[in-house]
Amino acid sequence: MEKLFSHLDALYGEIVDIRRHLHKHPELSFEEVETAKYITEYHRKLGHEVKEKVGGNGVVATLKGDLKGPTVALRADFDALPITEENDFDFKSVNEGVMHACGHDGHTATLLGAAKALNKLKSELKGNIVFIHQHAEELPPGGAKAMIEDGCLDGVDVIFGTHLQAQVPLHEIQYRTDALQASADRFEITIQGKGGHGAVPEETKDSILIASQVVTNLQQIVSRRVSPLDAAVISVCSFDARGPYNVIADTAHLIGTSRALNEEVRTKIEEEIEQVVKGTSLLSHASYEYKYTRGYPVTVNHKEEAEFVMEIAKDVPGVEEIKITEPFMGAEDYSYYLQKVKGTYFFTGARPRGATDAYPHHHPKFDIDEEALLIAAKILSKSAVEYINRHS
Amino acid sequence: MEKLFSHLDALYGEIVDIRRHLHKHPELSFEEVETAKYITEYHRKLGHEVKEKVGGNGVVATLKGDLKGPTVALRADFDALPITEENDFDFKSVNEGVMHACGHDGHTATLLGAAKALNKLKSELKGNIVFIHQHAEELPPGGAKAMIEDGCLDGVDVIFGTHLQAQVPLHEIQYRTDALQASADRFEITIQGKGGHGAVPEETKDSILIASQVVTNLQQIVSRRVSPLDAAVISVCSFDARGPYNVIADTAHLIGTSRALNEEVRTKIEEEIEQVVKGTSLLSHASYEYKYTRGYPVTVNHKEEAEFVMEIAKDVPGVEEIKITEPFMGAEDYSYYLQKVKGTYFFTGARPRGATDAYPHHHPKFDIDEEALLIAAKILSKSAVEYINRHS
Amino acid sequence: MEKLFSHLDALYGEIVDIRRHLHKHPELSFEEVETAKYITEYHRKLGHEVKEKVGGNGVVATLKGDLKGPTVALRADFDALPITEENDFDFKSVNEGVMHACGHDGHTATLLGAAKALNKLKSELKGNIVFIHQHAEELPPGGAKAMIEDGCLDGVDVIFGTHLQAQVPLHEIQYRTDALQASADRFEITIQGKGGHGAVPEETKDSILIASQVVTNLQQIVSRRVSPLDAAVISVCSFDARGPYNVIADTAHLIGTSRALNEEVRTKIEEEIEQVVKGTSLLSHASYEYKYTRGYPVTVNHKEEAEFVMEIAKDVPGVEEIKITEPFMGAEDYSYYLQKVKGTYFFTGARPRGATDAYPHHHPKFDIDEEALLIAAKILSKSAVEYINRHS
Amino acid sequence: MEKLFSHLDALYGEIVDIRRHLHKHPELSFEEVETAKYITEYHRKLGHEVKEKVGGNGVVATLKGDLKGPTVALRADFDALPITEENDFDFKSVNEGVMHACGHDGHTATLLGAAKALNKLKSELKGNIVFIHQHAEELPPGGAKAMIEDGCLDGVDVIFGTHLQAQVPLHEIQYRTDALQASADRFEITIQGKGGHGAVPEETKDSILIASQVVTNLQQIVSRRVSPLDAAVISVCSFDARGPYNVIADTAHLIGTSRALNEEVRTKIEEEIEQVVKGTSLLSHASYEYKYTRGYPVTVNHKEEAEFVMEIAKDVPGVEEIKITEPFMGAEDYSYYLQKVKGTYFFTGARPRGATDAYPHHHPKFDIDEEALLIAAKILSKSAVEYINRHS
Repeated sequence: MEKLFSHLDALYGEIVDIRRHLHKHPELSFEEVETAKYITEYHRKLGHEVKEKVGGNGVVATLKGDLKGPTVALRADFDALPITEENDFDFKSVNEGVMHACGHDGHTATLLGAAKALNKLKSELKGNIVFIHQHAEELPPGGAKAMIEDGCLDGVDVIFGTHLQAQVPLHEIQYRTDALQASADRFEITIQGKGGHGAVPEETKDSILIASQVVTNLQQIVSRRVSPLDAAVISVCSFDARGPYNVIADTAHLIGTSRALNEEVRTKIEEEIEQVVKGTSLLSHASYEYKYTRGYPVTVNHKEEAEFVMEIAKDVPGVEEIKITEPFMGAEDYSYYLQKVKGTYFFTGARPRGATDAYPHHHPKFDIDEEALLIAAKILSKSAVEYINRHS
Repeated sequence: MEKLFSHLDALYGEIVDIRRHLHKHPELSFEEVETAKYITEYHRKLGHEVKEKVGGNGVVATLKGDLKGPTVALRADFDALPITEENDFDFKSVNEGVMHACGHDGHTATLLGAAKALNKLKSELKGNIVFIHQHAEELPPGGAKAMIEDGCLDGVDVIFGTHLQAQVPLHEIQYRTDALQASADRFEITIQGKGGHGAVPEETKDSILIASQVVTNLQQIVSRRVSPLDAAVISVCSFDARGPYNVIADTAHLIGTSRALNEEVRTKIEEEIEQVVKGTSLLSHASYEYKYTRGYPVTVNHKEEAEFVMEIAKDVPGVEEIKITEPFMGAEDYSYYLQKVKGTYFFTGARPRGATDAYPHHHPKFDIDEEALLIAAKILSKSAVEYINRHS
Repeated sequence: MEKLFSHLDALYGEIVDIRRHLHKHPELSFEEVETAKYITEYHRKLGHEVKEKVGGNGVVATLKGDLKGPTVALRADFDALPITEENDFDFKSVNEGVMHACGHDGHTATLLGAAKALNKLKSELKGNIVFIHQHAEELPPGGAKAMIEDGCLDGVDVIFGTHLQAQVPLHEIQYRTDALQASADRFEITIQGKGGHGAVPEETKDSILIASQVVTNLQQIVSRRVSPLDAAVISVCSFDARGPYNVIADTAHLIGTSRALNEEVRTKIEEEIEQVVKGTSLLSHASYEYKYTRGYPVTVNHKEEAEFVMEIAKDVPGVEEIKITEPFMGAEDYSYYLQKVKGTYFFTGARPRGATDAYPHHHPKFDIDEEALLIAAKILSKSAVEYINRHS
Repeated sequence: MEKLFSHLDALYGEIVDIRRHLHKHPELSFEEVETAKYITEYHRKLGHEVKEKVGGNGVVATLKGDLKGPTVALRADFDALPITEENDFDFKSVNEGVMHACGHDGHTATLLGAAKALNKLKSELKGNIVFIHQHAEELPPGGAKAMIEDGCLDGVDVIFGTHLQAQVPLHEIQYRTDALQASADRFEITIQGKGGHGAVPEETKDSILIASQVVTNLQQIVSRRVSPLDAAVISVCSFDARGPYNVIADTAHLIGTSRALNEEVRTKIEEEIEQVVKGTSLLSHASYEYKYTRGYPVTVNHKEEAEFVMEIAKDVPGVEEIKITEPFMGAEDYSYYLQKVKGTYFFTGARPRGATDAYPHHHPKFDIDEEALLIAAKILSKSAVEYINRHS
């Protein structure tokens, strides 16, 4: 196995180059055509079987070991964000208004490096490794769901993946054995009142007042109807009822997001929002429309696989600390893979050396320490090989 | 007619004595036994036909003119209040905790004085005068309704009455040709939630929160659902949900009052309160009970009669100013008489001489200027005679 | 005086023609250039002294009687509305999207007709009549204020004016001796919270929630802090806090209007809105901006002048009924004139014959019965002459 | 060590007898005089050094090993509840209205049994064991704080304790390595408005409305100001503003409880409640009083000690399952010990055999399976001995 790490150490320069190339040429979610080509090319050169256009711009490459055995999937996402980069790198984004500000360039470089290193073990590999290069993680409905529907998990026994974390210290790994990231849903509420002259409220149903009461009343779902031990968020993020200063608005539109760390709470939130809207409308004789759209589900790691990968990680050079992290209320469409097959997702510390307070993800000055790519590549590839060894 | 005023001027001392006697011996609403006897006695001595125990402690005396003609009713109330007097009069209340703090002693003295003066005109009177001495004006359901049901208005063509006003300048008369005083209703709301441990809100329906939202939501009935040109009041005056500091309350009780100046608004308030309670309960899965009890209705003067009495009043000695008053949101069961027969109710200024800021009604130091009794007696009795003259 | 009415009867055809000409060529508030020229021309032909561009597009013409005496002003407004006419008249608006949908064409025709008739009485007129043709009544800050500042009331003793009312029966006149129309103010509130990710509310100050609570809390100003006997309206008519579904908004903007029928209530509303905004912001650690802009003040008639004009009106041919109207919560910049000089404003019924339910003002099918112009012209011009006669 | 378990097995009958004796003779918090005597007696017979009246009715007994070494404390509480027992045991409570409905009888029997068994190991014991028999756990301020102040932890190195859980399956142990139970605080809010007649709201400051808004506004502390990952509860459990139906209340009193699982959140809740009360009062010109009283703090286990005891527990006969439990929002004054010395608290499953849905704690039919006492005694006593062995 030490061979694997040597290969990766030797590939480190190339991994960094790949990351910088991708960083310089970022593409928005669902528009990642050149990036997909780049990935495809890379795997083709390695002789991997490659499927393009999987569920969109997704790319799935397979390394078939010379010996029979289980199939491990490793996943990296490769889309960028609509942010104008403010870094001074020579590999700064050349696509105005688009930036790899969440580390997906690093994820992809990590996975390509791992692929090249693993390829060198082909002759002794007692199973297969599927490299899932996923497009569009940043923008619901995301790429994962469509790639799964398009078969990317067919025959896969287990899946591993990681997210580089700019605010977690380099050399630290964070994990959980259960819910790691929240579900993220979207709701839309329209209050249909009755407009009229601002001086004659008694002939109207004041939709702004009614919608305002909805916003206020929604607070008690989290404060009273969900267990304090269950995480839940309901945020109304848009309130639109613009009009002239003297005309009572006949409709008001609310849009928002809700988060949960388990499906029972998620369903309760969906139902309770409607209950609040229904009662609040009724008390003012108004009517309403309510639409709740489920986004990414909760990212729930499988205990055994999570612990397995951490067992590997603890012996990977460069890993100095392994911590159980709090769950994170942001969502991730890696969750869909974990609904289908066993597996785990973990965080790889990537705080730039010297930074005590790194720029957060999605910031125009976001940056990572590239050593984290090597560490992540080692954990993922060794986990894959070791899993195959144990299960073949 | 000048005879009438001379008679009254001559009776002024007696009127004052009567008032002071009554003031010294006040009786609570529905307990006015001695006062009723005193009144009965007085009329008997004048030879009037007297009915006692009319609808309770009410007394109805009739002066039959020697000539045929219409019947005019004059009304005075005679109950006192559960207030401990703080005045230093030698005729201060001798009944601890009971006080004529609203001028009903004056009303009765006025009416008895008027009766004696009018009695002297018997031979030339072309009609009848009914003296309605009403008990229990201060305490709903009041005495008026029961006295009417017991026949006090039978045969009556028109009714006149006045209220002495300690905060209106002496020599000033106030009136309206339409709604003078508000309806006063009572509502009771019980929110039935589900109790439980204060640390486990998700297993409860927090009745204190729900009832609190009811209180908040009720505000918009007045602010949004009633015309700004219509007076309306909804006051929650009692909120009872006491309990230990760590047990979520399963029920909360609200009690309050509502006021309006017309029946449409009154009915709208009754309906809208329930709408608010229904919707607010629904949004929290709670149930409710709602009870709305109508108290005294709106006191609505009849235009022609109101103007007639003011036409009389303007020539009464001592009347220096006649004003249209704003309506008054307090209620008065004189309203019931005006629902049955034509008539009017007005305010007689009685501010104690020298006082710039008189004590308000129902205050332990409440007082009136007794000259107002003479003025009121003249207006009422002359209105009665003149009405008879014009309509016989 | 019967001469005056004969002159007006003879002019009726011309008055109708003027109105139809103006109706066909409406101009928006502050853009009434051609209309102003037309009016100027008309008065110049009559030999009246004319001032143009008074406070904008305003026109002030003066008829100097041959004899010395007081000066009466008569006012008519002449701007139109941004409404596309849907009537089928042959004098339908030829200016797409602009319409005389509030009767100002009729007001102007009435005043020009009155001017021509009064002009014929010049030799015997013991005073002066000022014809105030006001632009921009429909759009605050309106034309009245600027015209006054520009001197249109200099030397004026009293002012009379009327509004044609399409929903009041023809032949009916409505008036009040006190507040006839409300003040109309505008307020703007900005809640400055702190934006952030929809999943991390604890790092934000949710401006949508705070502004929603402001809207709810404002209700209690009308319901609890203003006397039920005082009309008051506070309407939030615009709520703008649009944004992506998953980003908590850092600011929310509210715009609204408030109405009152006296200055004390108006000032109280202005102060109490800020109190509510201040407390509501404080409870959530947010800051705010608050701007309250006074629009037209309350239109308060002067009692003596109001009664004087009605005394005239009751004998004008075509006037069958005179009623005291409820105040009207809409505003009118005639109010500014009444703050400077004595006078009155009244409503002239103009419901189209045969219509039981006329189209309301500002409706694309708004219409009036032109006979109302003749009635209004007679009341205004006779009031002017009679006022001069009595005060010279 | 097998000796220890043999001793305990032999003592099982006695342990059961002790428990039943205590169950039959329960005493309320702060009134546990006879129970304290019973405990004192028991330890005296064993030759233990006993301190009585420690911080109230507390009893502290010490077993000094013959060899020098560390000191381990074991704690059991012994107060009962004001509940009328509805069980049919022959050892049913003989004190009407008082019942051991939370298992403290079992805790004490467990500890006395352990004391007797440990006493037999005295000669070979390389340290000391302190038996903390604590009064008044059920009623804040509780007995723990006063016992600590009175020296019960002096010289103690570590403390272990357990709570029997009627709803946790027999043979199951539950633990956490961090916060196990919540803090429980009490707050009191008085809104000082201004009373007045229910018909004249504009002269009042409606304290019921203001307090209702406080209740509503408090919801957003949990929903918006505390991380969804942090447990927090704020429950208003008492709302007292009773009065006549037509008098606006001048004051309203709120009482409630708050819960948290860490001190930062606890302090934030304390501060944010006041912020909400301050802003809500300000917006209505009212004043307030606010009192926040800290009750039991968060019960925070020490990781190393928690894991140590579970390491022992897993080999104790009768322990079939060890689980990490969710934290529990109820409070426990064991928390005070853990603030002073290292240690841990865990739950011992005690669900009566055959019951699938046991009666909850504090229920009149509460019961436990007595085998749990033996299991608990083994875990506690073996942990004590083993700790001493490892640290001496």
